Amino acid sequence: MIRVGIVGFGKIARDQHVPAIAGSEKFVLAATASRNAHADGIPAYPDIDTMLAKEPTLDAVALCQPPQVRHGAARAALAAGKHVFLEKPPGATLSEVVDLARTADAAGVTLFASWHSRYAAGVETARQWIAGKELRRIDISWKEDVRHWHPGQAWIWQPGGLGVFDPGINALSILTQLLADPVRLEQASLEVPANRKAPIAARLAMRSASGAPIDAVFDWRQTGPQTWDIEVETDAGLLVLSHGGNTLTIDGVAQPLPAEAEYPELYARFAELIAAGKSDVDVAPFRLVADAFLTGETSVTDAFED
Amino acid sequence: MIRVGIVGFGKIARDQHVPAIAGSEKFVLAATASRNAHADGIPAYPDIDTMLAKEPTLDAVALCQPPQVRHGAARAALAAGKHVFLEKPPGATLSEVVDLARTADAAGVTLFASWHSRYAAGVETARQWIAGKELRRIDISWKEDVRHWHPGQAWIWQPGGLGVFDPGINALSILTQLLADPVRLEQASLEVPANRKAPIAARLAMRSASGAPIDAVFDWRQTGPQTWDIEVETDAGLLVLSHGGNTLTIDGVAQPLPAEAEYPELYARFAELIAAGKSDVDVAPFRLVADAFLTGETSVTDAFED
Repeated sequence: MIRVGIVGFGKIARDQHVPAIAGSEKFVLAATASRNAHADGIPAYPDIDTMLAKEPTLDAVALCQPPQVRHGAARAALAAGKHVFLEKPPGATLSEVVDLARTADAAGVTLFASWHSRYAAGVETARQWIAGKELRRIDISWKEDVRHWHPGQAWIWQPGGLGVFDPGINALSILTQLLADPVRLEQASLEVPANRKAPIAARLAMRSASGAPIDAVFDWRQTGPQTWDIEVETDAGLLVLSHGGNTLTIDGVAQPLPAEAEYPELYARFAELIAAGKSDVDVAPFRLVADAFLTGETSVTDAFED
Repeated sequence: MIRVGIVGFGKIARDQHVPAIAGSEKFVLAATASRNAHADGIPAYPDIDTMLAKEPTLDAVALCQPPQVRHGAARAALAAGKHVFLEKPPGATLSEVVDLARTADAAGVTLFASWHSRYAAGVETARQWIAGKELRRIDISWKEDVRHWHPGQAWIWQPGGLGVFDPGINALSILTQLLADPVRLEQASLEVPANRKAPIAARLAMRSASGAPIDAVFDWRQTGPQTWDIEVETDAGLLVLSHGGNTLTIDGVAQPLPAEAEYPELYARFAELIAAGKSDVDVAPFRLVADAFLTGETSVTDAFED
């Protein structure tokens, strides 16, 4: 069994990591490190340094805290010889992820930059259907209510918190999984609330390696029904992934899919990587986000209050 | 002889590329493509597509136009089987550079993302002196007068034009050449004129893989003497690279250096890569710039007029 400690014991840790670990035959939850929360019956520490010092038999850590503080924790865990599972996004900057990949290699341990949406129920079926077909266009619509999903989360509005790209990067992680060749950003526009540092909405104009246009709209101001849709038009018909990749239709016909199992699949992948002595650090989704900030036109929009 | 065509026949092409090609035993200037300028006695075309169509025996192209339009030209040249020399920065986004690298590989031709400042006279001597020493800190000061160096260049203020990072990326290209291990960005602040889209000044807080602080100040509002300095403090003394890497002192003592030959060295490297059937696409300097836009705090400063 791989003894894993979770750092940052917030909603994603409790809702997703704990059940996935409990359901795995490969992992056991051995400790948590968090300022405010703990799991009943599991050793709890206030921070990762204390956890690493007091739990020398830990094999791995899963880092679920905000991305702005993830690099320091990952460096400490790698230095202690632990395998590291990074929640998405893998950091606050691309260069710190490059640093972690090099550090993991030097330490001979596994680094896994996870993208949970790539394991949504419909993604693998969609990827196989798209392979070899001629792309005509892709349209991504990722619109949700930030007040519902991120109530009072100040970090998400700070530099490095990504704003609406925090959910939007999930769409980009699916997109870059669906297409075998690299996607490039051509243009972007970002809307930043007058009282915040990160965008509340964005539009991205991208292009596939074969030249097909890929348009994405991310918006955090959607009330009522939420939208997480990807439409892929090909020479052989229209594929639609909805509900964040968990529903799939082809030319309007619903496709049979396996049950949702994003985090169990992520932990199965983490176990495989550890067994094989490998790392998996694909920064493609994060690079598209960096490109949007790099080349995007920013405009100021209405102030946002939680 | 490698028959090379230059695309974008502006100041950098005339001042640097033409003499470097003329002085090389490996290259001959066979054509230019530019809307407004040409070289006496050399076939001139209005754009790259015409040049590629009319000059089928070209072996290579050097792309010197603004980065926002470089990707399309590079794609066209690679598709025609030409080796490609990219001026810095290698594009407007990281993802389009990844696309070019893949396209060059598929076409079996050389892609060279050039960083001319890495060939400044003092850089290799400095790199060798630093190797194996313990870094204490690095301070970069890159301050120049944009009115003098980029008079009326509108593209440089547009998204993708990088603003003050256009010179600043030269400092970052030297920095990432001096250090064997990756540099990571921790924080950045950017000052954007009220009437422009790109920063006129920036501060970057970076860190070496070994943990040494690296601070950089870029400013385009410097009149009088211009500053392009890198100070490297180590356990064995203080190294100072000045004049954009062309002057070197160690503990105050001027070091003997070879003559300045940035572009001749770049073309020698391009010839080597072509002969070896290899590409050289190091995005490290550009990634640090993308990270600065991604995670930096932007503030609005005084309007800027040329």
